[in-house]
Amino acid sequence: MTGDTHDSLKRIFEPESIAVIGVATEGFGFGRGILISLLAYGYPGKIYPVNPKGGVTHGLTIYRSVEDIPGRIDLGIIAVPAPKVPEAVEACRKKGAAGVEILSSGFREAGTPEGRELEERISRIAAEGIRIIGPNCFGIYSPRGGLTFLPGPDLSRESGPVAFISQSGGHSIDFAHMGKWKGLAFSKMISLGNGADLRETELLRYLGSDPDTEVIGMYIEGVKDGPAFFDALHDVASRKPVIVLKGGLSEAGGRAVQSHTASMGGSSVIWESVFRQCNAIQAVDLDELSDYALALTMLPHREYRRITIVGGGGALGVYAADMAERYGMCIPELKEDIQKQIDLLLPKPGSSARNPIDIANPYVTPEVLNGVLVRAAQDDAVDVQIVIQLLYHYKALAISFGADSVKPLTPFKELADAIDDAVNATKKPVIAVLPDLKQEVESIEVTEMIRETRKILTDMGIPVYDDLRNAVQSLNALSGYYKKKKAREKALQ
Amino acid sequence: MTGDTHDSLKRIFEPESIAVIGVATEGFGFGRGILISLLAYGYPGKIYPVNPKGGVTHGLTIYRSVEDIPGRIDLGIIAVPAPKVPEAVEACRKKGAAGVEILSSGFREAGTPEGRELEERISRIAAEGIRIIGPNCFGIYSPRGGLTFLPGPDLSRESGPVAFISQSGGHSIDFAHMGKWKGLAFSKMISLGNGADLRETELLRYLGSDPDTEVIGMYIEGVKDGPAFFDALHDVASRKPVIVLKGGLSEAGGRAVQSHTASMGGSSVIWESVFRQCNAIQAVDLDELSDYALALTMLPHREYRRITIVGGGGALGVYAADMAERYGMCIPELKEDIQKQIDLLLPKPGSSARNPIDIANPYVTPEVLNGVLVRAAQDDAVDVQIVIQLLYHYKALAISFGADSVKPLTPFKELADAIDDAVNATKKPVIAVLPDLKQEVESIEVTEMIRETRKILTDMGIPVYDDLRNAVQSLNALSGYYKKKKAREKALQ
Repeated sequence: MTGDTHDSLKRIFEPESIAVIGVATEGFGFGRGILISLLAYGYPGKIYPVNPKGGVTHGLTIYRSVEDIPGRIDLGIIAVPAPKVPEAVEACRKKGAAGVEILSSGFREAGTPEGRELEERISRIAAEGIRIIGPNCFGIYSPRGGLTFLPGPDLSRESGPVAFISQSGGHSIDFAHMGKWKGLAFSKMISLGNGADLRETELLRYLGSDPDTEVIGMYIEGVKDGPAFFDALHDVASRKPVIVLKGGLSEAGGRAVQSHTASMGGSSVIWESVFRQCNAIQAVDLDELSDYALALTMLPHREYRRITIVGGGGALGVYAADMAERYGMCIPELKEDIQKQIDLLLPKPGSSARNPIDIANPYVTPEVLNGVLVRAAQDDAVDVQIVIQLLYHYKALAISFGADSVKPLTPFKELADAIDDAVNATKKPVIAVLPDLKQEVESIEVTEMIRETRKILTDMGIPVYDDLRNAVQSLNALSGYYKKKKAREKALQ
Repeated sequence: MTGDTHDSLKRIFEPESIAVIGVATEGFGFGRGILISLLAYGYPGKIYPVNPKGGVTHGLTIYRSVEDIPGRIDLGIIAVPAPKVPEAVEACRKKGAAGVEILSSGFREAGTPEGRELEERISRIAAEGIRIIGPNCFGIYSPRGGLTFLPGPDLSRESGPVAFISQSGGHSIDFAHMGKWKGLAFSKMISLGNGADLRETELLRYLGSDPDTEVIGMYIEGVKDGPAFFDALHDVASRKPVIVLKGGLSEAGGRAVQSHTASMGGSSVIWESVFRQCNAIQAVDLDELSDYALALTMLPHREYRRITIVGGGGALGVYAADMAERYGMCIPELKEDIQKQIDLLLPKPGSSARNPIDIANPYVTPEVLNGVLVRAAQDDAVDVQIVIQLLYHYKALAISFGADSVKPLTPFKELADAIDDAVNATKKPVIAVLPDLKQEVESIEVTEMIRETRKILTDMGIPVYDDLRNAVQSLNALSGYYKKKKAREKALQ
């Protein structure tokens, strides 16, 4: 990647000024939509709305053309109908913008000769010296740059280590929203749409050398240049984890790819072997991708195999063993003296200190939880601990007490502190699992409490999952990546 | 099953009077816990608390012994320490109770000679003429009988077609809570614990002939008498769907089963062939089990293969195609004249009437949604329709409007009506998918709205899933069961 490209992309991701081309003063068109989103999100730079009719909107002067804009622009956001897009791109290029994002659709994806021709025209303009994101995309989400998607007025303003490159606008915005509550923060997200200019390979290389990005997620349906993409993936994944969600791996899905982004899908056998060879992590949906990203950003970078499970109930032990085996983990019996120490803390009868550690009571005190975690961590046969908390049981307790509200009598903050203290004291990571099994409207307070607990824990750097299965599966993704990475580095020495 | 057994079980599931043996007047022991749960749940019959100390609790006289109870009892609920359980069971037998549920633990599961001996003693008492649920269980949940689990003060009072037999108390109570908001209502749930007397096979046969039960779920770790269970499963599943979650199918899981219910697990190969031969539906966790039960109770009983997908975004089409192929479904292109009719309703550009029907806008009006569903249903190549609604996008709309609240401007009730009207007009079933992708604390209002929508739809008999994948997978479970059932019935003619 040339220094020029690097500078251009920096200006695109962190623009000091933006022209929004195609802003109507009413209705809910894309232009007005992105303007409102940027204002609500708090974009800190200058915004120049453009519309031939002129006027004023949201206190901003609407310029009749890009040429009329008084200052320089770094980024153009284009939302005019497809036939008018080429001249808007050209105007931005002449104005000296580093790039444009084209939200409009009606190009190659339309499947018409006109659409294809329009897309070729904008690709040619790009070659003359301006970078293009899109067309047919939701744009860029860049918390550091103050940029947000269409529509993305309420995405997180926090910047973080996860990047995302996506051939689907829907997936981009869904992932951005999911990240906000799962505990992921983003460096850059790019919805690349048809990819008339900037595409998966170049963006992957850019993010591979981006110091703000530690983990890269991708949603791809097909790639333009297979060997170049393969090279980039191999290279980048040897330095930082890349999680790939490949849409259209089934036969029917492959046909659907054709009509969505008109790119060649390729067979699942080929793709899966590419992922293996490159040590890229494969996810089957956004939920998995975001779960993996959480483990990859919050847990120490190494191999994991031996886990403790701390929770309640015999069936949990069985489920844990089934899931551990499925995802290449094991639940070793704790050393006898450690078992004895833990046993002293547990209620009788019905508890077990073997591992899974069965607390036999949903109302564990923070002291007991901390004590169990600290003692279990002493066993060097343990790599990581998983705590399952069924907080919904406090609702039954509230009813028994005749209490109106469940939160005051649930020590959720103290339980989070107990976990955090154990991690700090033992340096052994803990994953929390907080299932929400009471989702009826009337129990919204229970859900609110579980979400607050999740936020407290993820703010502490403790990853939280909805279910034990997701936790173990994510651990497997993390562990597999670093195991292979280490083996390769060793082979190269 | 003898008539006697039938009568006994009816008295146990719908008892007119209950003795709760082992009720302390303070603390949170099991006896006091179940008493509070029964009172809060609204058990309509007589409750006689028993404790040698006597006294009064919650306005009820505490009797010093079972013998002292003035009236007859149908069911005894026993929560005294294990060594005192045999005499309590014997007292209930002498008092003429049909059965007891023993919540206490400290029996065979404890792995001690004393525990085993105690369990043998209570089994012998059962043989003399009283039925036992447990020990080491959470009891019975029977909405019609007004019985609830420990702790289960806030389970649904509504009776319905789903039964559950479980070797795990935790799974029983988790499933009961999940059913409440997923749209499942229950006939009977039995947490059978160690199964000292009543066990999986007898209960399965009972529920097989229970007119209130249409779908049976089971969580089993191991069975006592393999061939008898196989016979019962084969017989019952030939009449109504049985969904089995078998814990401990992995090697490690099998070892965990040993220490939980001390039953022989058996290999996964054997189990899976049993399920196939019996046409039992296999689930890997409670989420799957409850999802399958929803499709089985709400959708017409037949085979399904060809679906329409109505939603927004090209990636959804790709994802839908991938998931459909994975679960044996297909998404046929609609007939040309129907496509034309649908196309007239859709916004331009970016939409598609082919199938997946891409509405290209998260803010679809109820009229358009209804129109699309009604027209697509005319195609006889369609068995069932799936609508995906990303209601969270209305949050962005609320922000754009400067509105404080998202609910007033979201037509969620009208969208539910639009779906219901289409089902009624066309007699073609619809499944709704309502992902909740905004789960941060501050967006609780969005979650509340999605949950209200779910409730409205499930009350209309329209099944709702969190994700397209769960919907298609559940459809596959339903379809596979009825396909095989039909083929078998034909072969027998």
